[in-house]
Amino acid sequence: MPRVGVIGGGQLARMMVPEALELGIEIRVLAETVDSPAAIAATAVGDYRDEATVLAFARDVDVVTFDHEHVPQSVLRALEAAGVAVHPGPDALLYAQDKIMMRRRLQELGLPVPDWALISDAAALDAFLAEHGGVGVVKTARGGYDGKGVRVVRSAAEVDDWFAAMAAGDGPELLVEELVSFRRELAQLVARRPSGEVQAWPVVETIQKDGVCSEVLAPAPGSAGRIADVAEQIALDVAEGLGVTGVLAVELFETDDDRILVNELAMRPHNSGHWTQDGSTTSQFEQHLRAVLDLPLGATGTLADWSVMVNVLGGPTDGSALVDHYPAMLAQHPTAKMHAYGKSPRPGRKLGHVNVAGDDLDQIVYEARAAAAFFTTL
Amino acid sequence: MPRVGVIGGGQLARMMVPEALELGIEIRVLAETVDSPAAIAATAVGDYRDEATVLAFARDVDVVTFDHEHVPQSVLRALEAAGVAVHPGPDALLYAQDKIMMRRRLQELGLPVPDWALISDAAALDAFLAEHGGVGVVKTARGGYDGKGVRVVRSAAEVDDWFAAMAAGDGPELLVEELVSFRRELAQLVARRPSGEVQAWPVVETIQKDGVCSEVLAPAPGSAGRIADVAEQIALDVAEGLGVTGVLAVELFETDDDRILVNELAMRPHNSGHWTQDGSTTSQFEQHLRAVLDLPLGATGTLADWSVMVNVLGGPTDGSALVDHYPAMLAQHPTAKMHAYGKSPRPGRKLGHVNVAGDDLDQIVYEARAAAAFFTTL
Repeated sequence: MPRVGVIGGGQLARMMVPEALELGIEIRVLAETVDSPAAIAATAVGDYRDEATVLAFARDVDVVTFDHEHVPQSVLRALEAAGVAVHPGPDALLYAQDKIMMRRRLQELGLPVPDWALISDAAALDAFLAEHGGVGVVKTARGGYDGKGVRVVRSAAEVDDWFAAMAAGDGPELLVEELVSFRRELAQLVARRPSGEVQAWPVVETIQKDGVCSEVLAPAPGSAGRIADVAEQIALDVAEGLGVTGVLAVELFETDDDRILVNELAMRPHNSGHWTQDGSTTSQFEQHLRAVLDLPLGATGTLADWSVMVNVLGGPTDGSALVDHYPAMLAQHPTAKMHAYGKSPRPGRKLGHVNVAGDDLDQIVYEARAAAAFFTTL
Repeated sequence: MPRVGVIGGGQLARMMVPEALELGIEIRVLAETVDSPAAIAATAVGDYRDEATVLAFARDVDVVTFDHEHVPQSVLRALEAAGVAVHPGPDALLYAQDKIMMRRRLQELGLPVPDWALISDAAALDAFLAEHGGVGVVKTARGGYDGKGVRVVRSAAEVDDWFAAMAAGDGPELLVEELVSFRRELAQLVARRPSGEVQAWPVVETIQKDGVCSEVLAPAPGSAGRIADVAEQIALDVAEGLGVTGVLAVELFETDDDRILVNELAMRPHNSGHWTQDGSTTSQFEQHLRAVLDLPLGATGTLADWSVMVNVLGGPTDGSALVDHYPAMLAQHPTAKMHAYGKSPRPGRKLGHVNVAGDDLDQIVYEARAAAAFFTTL
């Protein structure tokens, strides 16, 4: 039986487990803690930054893949040097780990990105702001996720702390991007095998609250035709150009002036693809396993006209658990598919999501939001 | 987090694990062996006939349910006496364990069953055969499954060994049934909560080879209307009348003279319901967990006009593993959903199944058969 080793025991690793079981693939997880979401498949608990820990974990698996992009390049290179198959590989992951590298490479590939600049000091930032209407989005090159490491600023003083940390040598490099005036955000997921086969799901609309994904509509309403074609081609070009293996999520802006620009990349299953669990012939978690094992990819057709995913964020604040609210929620929403991550409630934390698929978009949006509202506190 | 304990570590327990993970329910399995199909969730390995083993396993779970119907009544009663919730309970399971009890009870309930008789000796059998065209189906009251414990006979001599075992006190009681002249076999699955809610999936057609389920077509072609209504009502009456909790499968004959007769019962997820994993809003495994936890049941609508399940029986005879054939199979059948049980090949053994859903029955029957044929040797 082929063995996939997943570094990181979060909800993405957790949701690979059902697909591995059904495919008859053995899955092993290197988890951060003993009570991680993917604990059922954890064969090791340890620090993914520690080379010896990761090498020991990887010794008995056929391929290593990831729940997150935070494994250091030095550890990834050590894995490859030890003969371990790593998907996505370090050369690709570099672009998901470092936003400056990513922006440079996408520009080289001729892909559409917001205006941006490396900023080594406040003067460089002020110059960029002056050229872009007095506003910009400053990002740390490394370490950001779910809105962290991102600030919309109107003066360099608003990121004084980041400049200071960088100057002191204990903070990441910084870049600034134009504040894109966008109509909505989209995400395009594709999967790519080491031997080259690619498959794309339909482009989706993602709705963020406070920088965190809140809802996904699949496909993105009104996207059939130009938007779907452009988004898919961008993601395929990124996958090919960066040599991504496994699932690639490309977060996109649909601008007010009808351009599609690349915002961020993730090289793993992604929140914007959770709808595929109940809305596509092949879920992103199954596809990721197939891709990293270099198995033929599955069909990405939809099971209904529309799918909606709503995140369960925060959870009850009265000390109750998610499951305490199941009797009421499940009784009212028999078509809602609950996906819980086995985490305890905490404000803003992603605890799970609800998927609903159907032929009436308004109806399923209502169902998914109403179902998730049983658990969600922001 | 609610904890479900499953007695038995076969493929049915295995396929409850993904649903438990997504629902955020803890699942624990008492497995027969360390390498059972449900090993990933096994918290104990032991003999389900041993009261102390089962009681120890059940101590830390909220409800006990089953991968099979073979747990002795004495053990089930001891669980209840110890205050453990058991679903389905011993009073219901009795009818899935003993075909004589089942036939008597269904007759009391006025449900349609084949002609049958208890046979304590060869003379009684000969008398029954004489009244039924010289042929009958002799069954052991206990211990039969997948065609075992069932013989079509034309003379009492053909079950001499069973009579001898019964007379010696080490064989089960025997019954004989008319050999029903049927057009096809059907199965009706329903789920019932302890508090009474019931949900039914569409009736399906099941195709047996050598007494083992080989294919399932969902819904049964041409069943809309009378057949669907009658089958569903029979299963609901059985569930209610026998007090079944969890999933109930009622195997049915559609006779040449247009009657629907009850053949067998199973009180657990069933081979005839595997199509629900990829063809229904709620799979039988999720529904079983919801039912035994007395949670509201999920919607049982279909995701496509048709679903087809084909069992993977036997497996490769050349020493190769199922996964060795994935590259060829998955490349040719991107819409086929593989479900592997983690078992090693053996002639006739159920190793997995393939589901395909779609709108063209002929096409998906072809896809599912062709996909399963990569692995199947009978």
